[in-house]
Amino acid sequence: MSRETRTTPSIRSAKKARAAFRAGDTSPTAGRAEGFTQANLISVPADWAYEMLLFCQRNPKPCPVLDVTDAGSWGTPLAPGADLRTDLPLYRVWEHGELTAEPTDVVDHWRDDLVTFLIGCSFTFEWALADAGVPLRHIEQGRNVPMYVTDRPCRPAGRLHGPMVVSMRPVPPGRLADAIRESSLMPAVHGSPVHCGDPGGLGIEHLGRPDFGDAVALEPDDIPVFWACGVTPQAAVMASRPPFAITHAPGRMFVTDARDEQYRVV
Amino acid sequence: MSRETRTTPSIRSAKKARAAFRAGDTSPTAGRAEGFTQANLISVPADWAYEMLLFCQRNPKPCPVLDVTDAGSWGTPLAPGADLRTDLPLYRVWEHGELTAEPTDVVDHWRDDLVTFLIGCSFTFEWALADAGVPLRHIEQGRNVPMYVTDRPCRPAGRLHGPMVVSMRPVPPGRLADAIRESSLMPAVHGSPVHCGDPGGLGIEHLGRPDFGDAVALEPDDIPVFWACGVTPQAAVMASRPPFAITHAPGRMFVTDARDEQYRVV
Repeated sequence: MSRETRTTPSIRSAKKARAAFRAGDTSPTAGRAEGFTQANLISVPADWAYEMLLFCQRNPKPCPVLDVTDAGSWGTPLAPGADLRTDLPLYRVWEHGELTAEPTDVVDHWRDDLVTFLIGCSFTFEWALADAGVPLRHIEQGRNVPMYVTDRPCRPAGRLHGPMVVSMRPVPPGRLADAIRESSLMPAVHGSPVHCGDPGGLGIEHLGRPDFGDAVALEPDDIPVFWACGVTPQAAVMASRPPFAITHAPGRMFVTDARDEQYRVV
Repeated sequence: MSRETRTTPSIRSAKKARAAFRAGDTSPTAGRAEGFTQANLISVPADWAYEMLLFCQRNPKPCPVLDVTDAGSWGTPLAPGADLRTDLPLYRVWEHGELTAEPTDVVDHWRDDLVTFLIGCSFTFEWALADAGVPLRHIEQGRNVPMYVTDRPCRPAGRLHGPMVVSMRPVPPGRLADAIRESSLMPAVHGSPVHCGDPGGLGIEHLGRPDFGDAVALEPDDIPVFWACGVTPQAAVMASRPPFAITHAPGRMFVTDARDEQYRVV
């Protein structure tokens, strides 16, 4: 995964991944179409779209917006030709904050008033961490990154409120500066960490019991480093209970045609 | 203006500047409360707020949003205690895209349904350019930065559309890399340039005839460098003709308590 060995990714790999998911593949998207940006998806009725967009603007670290569709549209310039209703591996349908279905497409759940938000994902900066020599423990251990609901409330927007969710990566002390610098250079995909060290500072009691994803073992001396996480809008849906919403299922993101490097400021 | 000679700015200078503007001072804000972030202001009826926020999200280089108020509110966390209706030197009131008044406060024009957007300003990265040794010709020449309406349309959002506006700074060839790097590190205040060199590439015919601000002379070999400009939302108001809007008057920005350095990613 170093700069020397990584080949230039072909856009065909992104299109191929979406085609597989459209055809019924429900596997997680981590490692698929490497080099292409994956995004969190959340669709809400137009009546809630302003509050969702304002919530994202007011909480840009957990909710960096990569694109917003026009109401009813299932297309995005981030992946021309893709269908947001079918091209993710797995979706979640929410009614009044309760999970009511987990289908492989949402054609039958679609509504003409749905506005879809594509939110940046920390997968996007992992290649930059790896290139800078930061080990990615969850990948080494074959696990999904662990995510935690914190005790930090997001700044609310109208009816939308909820806690900030974070992802955690263990970082050796000698690599902390690299991890901070590299992620800082990608503010559109969560940017710099929100917290390093004591999980209690975020109200997290047990690192071994994440709220989403898998527990990951720390090596001796590793510092737990916490980045704001794109699951935050889903937590807001659960807390704020809009009448209807669709999201991607955890770990089953939308694979775009955008390249990870595009989101790096220099 | 080098790092060695600049003193740590005191927040009192920002409060003092706002108090002077509240008391009737209508002078331009360039150079006032140095080190504190200045913002473009635009207030639209709540009925237009979603489209304005979406327009900004879809055009983040010209329209980086620093804050959005709740409808009717004249306060912002960017300057606790400030009154957005009175604390700018000069305002512009727009009806159906036509300028109808240029008052020193907008208390009498205020409406309970106004949502106010504070948009990043390229003044914020000028200290970083200067620190990196990039000469600021407009400041050397005692002029306002020149701004131009380009032939590049913004990506529309509902009823809102309009051209991208840019500011131009002449940069010596040996400093171009510094200018690009330093502004790139501040994506929340327009970030990297959108164009360097031939003005014709943006549909600009005469550098000597800017649409806003003052003409600035280039030194021999200077390259004209163009950054997306926070006047763009005003151009969208002029083009899209919402029934009502308030903006700051050109060069008379809102002085916040935020520090310029806050908007630098590393």
